[in-house]
Amino acid sequence: MKSYREELWFNIEKRRDYVNITSQVQKAIEKSGIREGLCLVNAMHITASVYINDAESGLIQDYDDWLEQLAPHSPVEHYRHNLTGEDNGDAHLKRQVMGREVVVAVTKGELDFGPWEQIFYAEFDGRRRKRVLVKIIGE
Amino acid sequence: MKSYREELWFNIEKRRDYVNITSQVQKAIEKSGIREGLCLVNAMHITASVYINDAESGLIQDYDDWLEQLAPHSPVEHYRHNLTGEDNGDAHLKRQVMGREVVVAVTKGELDFGPWEQIFYAEFDGRRRKRVLVKIIGE
Amino acid sequence: MKSYREELWFNIEKRRDYVNITSQVQKAIEKSGIREGLCLVNAMHITASVYINDAESGLIQDYDDWLEQLAPHSPVEHYRHNLTGEDNGDAHLKRQVMGREVVVAVTKGELDFGPWEQIFYAEFDGRRRKRVLVKIIGE
Repeated sequence: MKSYREELWFNIEKRRDYVNITSQVQKAIEKSGIREGLCLVNAMHITASVYINDAESGLIQDYDDWLEQLAPHSPVEHYRHNLTGEDNGDAHLKRQVMGREVVVAVTKGELDFGPWEQIFYAEFDGRRRKRVLVKIIGE
Repeated sequence: MKSYREELWFNIEKRRDYVNITSQVQKAIEKSGIREGLCLVNAMHITASVYINDAESGLIQDYDDWLEQLAPHSPVEHYRHNLTGEDNGDAHLKRQVMGREVVVAVTKGELDFGPWEQIFYAEFDGRRRKRVLVKIIGE
Repeated sequence: MKSYREELWFNIEKRRDYVNITSQVQKAIEKSGIREGLCLVNAMHITASVYINDAESGLIQDYDDWLEQLAPHSPVEHYRHNLTGEDNGDAHLKRQVMGREVVVAVTKGELDFGPWEQIFYAEFDGRRRKRVLVKIIGE
């Protein structure tokens, strides 16, 4: 069994944004030399998500509006977490809806994906350096 | 390390439906010959989910009502995604609540499950052929 | 390839509670002797979650309030599932928001975590014995 580890770094300029990282994950698979296995891609921070869905700008705006409706940023006093001096209580909730991680199959050295599957990094509390972990195991 | 891959195909007649696929996944594990490992089961389409919960018809109706409340299908103009000509904006949101995939342990050649765990395929934009991927790695 | 399996047992006194299980999972990794691989941690019951987020008491209260708002416990007649005689319909919905499982990377024999990642068991229908499965594969 082989294993491979790589970190992807982000410094998102806005509080919230959505970045397609599919090609970066595919490159990690190629570097790993693994042909058959599983690839874990997870946010290493607890106010960000990794999820799989469509690379369509209207949908991304729909997600952002919907998450803001489910867990609004303001008023920041609404969240007990913000009593710690943070203002990112909403980001911890949004991240649970979108998820921490995806696990994807590696088949013949490639992401084993349906026609529209794309991997996204979703930032809910940006404007600082944050990381995604890619861990691949297989043969 | 062994690996095994299988696709399950669905053509759900309704827009939304929930199908118990536990026995199909167990059969894939048997075909794989893998006794100890991990089994990934994921929707290959971005308007469908794979999740684990109870095979109880009242609960399934509760899920359907709740998802429709969290992300209603109508009015379709509510979703920017539907400006592309689609009417499935809601389906992309419902899928995020229920999740894309499950990862299950394989122990002694079987799904390593608690007493009520059952694997479901949840369709949120049916009436066409769609796939689920089963990928198993182990020994 | 090695594999390791362990069950963690809980008997939560309240209906809902949130328990940090990070050190128990780290101990399982040490017992496994696995240095590089993947570790699955999943609730074996369908009214509980395993998730990764911050060990901050204000945030945990925010999660609990938010889940109760998204899927209120009362009135219990609101859920068709409760026609079976159960009163835990809400718990099945809350569990879908927070998720069944996490998959974490094992690197150099340790949980490969960002600075604030902690693994929690979330109970939504307690006051009885329930289990979490830890399954680790790797080398």
